[in-house]
Amino acid sequence: MNAPTTHSMLTDSFVSAELYTQVQQFYARQMGLIDDRLPEEWASTFTEDAVFEEASRMAPLRGREAIAASCRVRAERLEAEQIDFRHWLAMLDIRPQPDGTLHTRVYALAMRTGRGGPLDIFASVVCRDELVQSDDRWLVRHRELQHDGAER
Amino acid sequence: MNAPTTHSMLTDSFVSAELYTQVQQFYARQMGLIDDRLPEEWASTFTEDAVFEEASRMAPLRGREAIAASCRVRAERLEAEQIDFRHWLAMLDIRPQPDGTLHTRVYALAMRTGRGGPLDIFASVVCRDELVQSDDRWLVRHRELQHDGAER
Amino acid sequence: MNAPTTHSMLTDSFVSAELYTQVQQFYARQMGLIDDRLPEEWASTFTEDAVFEEASRMAPLRGREAIAASCRVRAERLEAEQIDFRHWLAMLDIRPQPDGTLHTRVYALAMRTGRGGPLDIFASVVCRDELVQSDDRWLVRHRELQHDGAER
Repeated sequence: MNAPTTHSMLTDSFVSAELYTQVQQFYARQMGLIDDRLPEEWASTFTEDAVFEEASRMAPLRGREAIAASCRVRAERLEAEQIDFRHWLAMLDIRPQPDGTLHTRVYALAMRTGRGGPLDIFASVVCRDELVQSDDRWLVRHRELQHDGAER
Repeated sequence: MNAPTTHSMLTDSFVSAELYTQVQQFYARQMGLIDDRLPEEWASTFTEDAVFEEASRMAPLRGREAIAASCRVRAERLEAEQIDFRHWLAMLDIRPQPDGTLHTRVYALAMRTGRGGPLDIFASVVCRDELVQSDDRWLVRHRELQHDGAER
Repeated sequence: MNAPTTHSMLTDSFVSAELYTQVQQFYARQMGLIDDRLPEEWASTFTEDAVFEEASRMAPLRGREAIAASCRVRAERLEAEQIDFRHWLAMLDIRPQPDGTLHTRVYALAMRTGRGGPLDIFASVVCRDELVQSDDRWLVRHRELQHDGAER
């Protein structure tokens, strides 16, 4: 049981600085798009056939159009309620796969602030992505969000 | 409307690992200076003519001396009240400009803990900086802080 | 008094992107191990003779076995109470030492979510590590945790 973990902590199992910082930048910009309420731009960071799973909250979203539609509803609601929403991601781990895709695991915090109201950091989530490269861009092909405190 | 965003997610629009991690290190040390209550050292990370804007809280600070003075007042107050203050920055995006400066956008959390008291994470802020290089150092020439929940 | 700090903000005093992202990856995986309740794997990221200090909470742990034992007790308690626990680390600063070891300073947040309960981010901590390289792995030889709000 120790073997895989021990191996995974070898420095040569870490990804390169270039790849690590590319994915850090990808997430900073991607989350900026949803926080800035840009549904089309947000959806464009997923593949056409992407699957977005958040089992404790909703049925899976299948395809870029469903992801855009979900973001539009969300953006309209936040706009109406005048809520600033932020997604923080950190503690990024990247595992390159033999087929060139990347499996990532990253911690996420979801937080919101109403107009004149207090900051509310309300959810800790573990995000597991499959990233694929397409035309010199990284895209999410599969995202699974597990909320802390949810039934497993 | 999609074009700029699409372009910006191209991997060749991401900055190099060396630059990205330099700016990460710059922010870790810079915020460490204000959290450690070192006003002169904090001010030395801004240019002589730097402008520090935080519209929802105060009039702009103009120049390194004003920035140092503001930090001194703050440090004395926190010292008197025995409050440990932390600034967290993450979700860093860097856009190099044609003139060699950097425009950055980074999320910030402000938090404090009184002696024996609970942790209070009380503000989510978006920080937009203009960074310039001088004598092998990065310096902030302009900082704009937008508090979530504030009037726009 | 300015000299050391000024020097430390020179870009050539920042560590390389490769080293910086290696340590970021090390911490993401290491904290993943304690959050995933893997005491043996967690302990294997410390040297055999490691010292783990958290003065405001407990007597120092001395040696890998003591570190594993402490983690086992903790994991069993969290399992029994069905609590999801997360360690976030950020604002990493690395100071390489002449002997090849690394002194790091990094901010940490500790947070937990009970089954069906709210997120509770309850502690801000400054973590200071001494990291050593052994057989192509980074290991913690000394860790000191200072809780914000604790008596100094």
